[in-house]
Amino acid sequence: MADNKVVLLDALPSLFGMRVRISLAEKGIKYEYKEQDLRNKSSLLLEMNPVHKKIPILIHNGKPVCESLIIVEYINEVWNETAPLLPSDPYQKAQARFWADYVDKKVYVMGRKILDSNVDEEKEEGKKGFIECLKVLEGELGDKPYFGGETFGFVDIALVTLYCWSYETLGNFSLEVLCPKLFSWGKRCIEKNESVSKTLPHQHKIYDFVLGLNKKPKART
Amino acid sequence: MADNKVVLLDALPSLFGMRVRISLAEKGIKYEYKEQDLRNKSSLLLEMNPVHKKIPILIHNGKPVCESLIIVEYINEVWNETAPLLPSDPYQKAQARFWADYVDKKVYVMGRKILDSNVDEEKEEGKKGFIECLKVLEGELGDKPYFGGETFGFVDIALVTLYCWSYETLGNFSLEVLCPKLFSWGKRCIEKNESVSKTLPHQHKIYDFVLGLNKKPKART
Repeated sequence: MADNKVVLLDALPSLFGMRVRISLAEKGIKYEYKEQDLRNKSSLLLEMNPVHKKIPILIHNGKPVCESLIIVEYINEVWNETAPLLPSDPYQKAQARFWADYVDKKVYVMGRKILDSNVDEEKEEGKKGFIECLKVLEGELGDKPYFGGETFGFVDIALVTLYCWSYETLGNFSLEVLCPKLFSWGKRCIEKNESVSKTLPHQHKIYDFVLGLNKKPKART
Repeated sequence: MADNKVVLLDALPSLFGMRVRISLAEKGIKYEYKEQDLRNKSSLLLEMNPVHKKIPILIHNGKPVCESLIIVEYINEVWNETAPLLPSDPYQKAQARFWADYVDKKVYVMGRKILDSNVDEEKEEGKKGFIECLKVLEGELGDKPYFGGETFGFVDIALVTLYCWSYETLGNFSLEVLCPKLFSWGKRCIEKNESVSKTLPHQHKIYDFVLGLNKKPKART
């Protein structure tokens, strides 16, 4: 079903955009990619997401869907015949939503403190909080290969895009030492899933991008 | 199905808890209500939500579900034979999720600025942002009786619990004047839906509670 026109408005370094690109790749959906200049937003972007004025935006047959996790659920529901990204059991689904929400509300917020702050104290607070979050996730992952069990899915998609965002380099810590299971999980996501390896840019590219961000006027990706 | 043991850990003034109580009432689900003291959290609360240590928590057959909107979706999926709270169409569902998420990310955050701040400038900034959000919602509602159309549902549940939280009194503005459609919608939700009228406490009670909150050490509900 749904063999229709799909357009993605996105910006390559966006970890939210990467979630959508990974999901589209998992489902094998063909789409037109339109890179957006976030410092000079296009009229199409503003028309399709007038509320938040942000990417990613999935335009399916002319109708926009916004906010990355909502887009991933939408993709999973529309293209429901292959590669399920969420479990069908309501309890397992609620757990997946809980952890993906945790990534946005806690992990990402702490990560931004490391990336954004020029004040040592704030950066240190962000680093401490970020590492605490990673340890919580390490505990939740346990000895499972992926967060949902045997199969790559929703929580993995939500979290893996942070993997390339140079937090270790900028925060000066080793994920491998602090959270060895999470470190292996990240490697596994990349090595075993072409949808991830083909989507995530090399960490060095993101590192240069983040350093550049801090020199320019702010635009959130 | 799912005619099983349901327990709700909650605190009466919590607008997040009210969302769950309204949903349970909509579905006609019997449950045991356990009021929680948020200044002296019970071992049950800490055991059931060790990550956020927050209410509401729905415990279904001994297993916890946390975060209000995730709980509402869970209730809707498990008790799926009566009173659908979300549309089944993926696009309409994505839109409902988008607006409920907007309530949490924007409306609630701005509302907290009005309630929490003791600094006039911050309070004024919160009020301005809050009113802008309400106008966006007024536009989205348009002439529909409910956000999803003819039937009370997900976005209504997400938003209506803010209706009793005394923002007008504390922010010194009239919703009826600024957003007449939203004002009528709130009245309609209460007058036409027993699940709402029986759940929402009177605004004066919340007002006293909020004033009390500002005099005590902080505990987020």
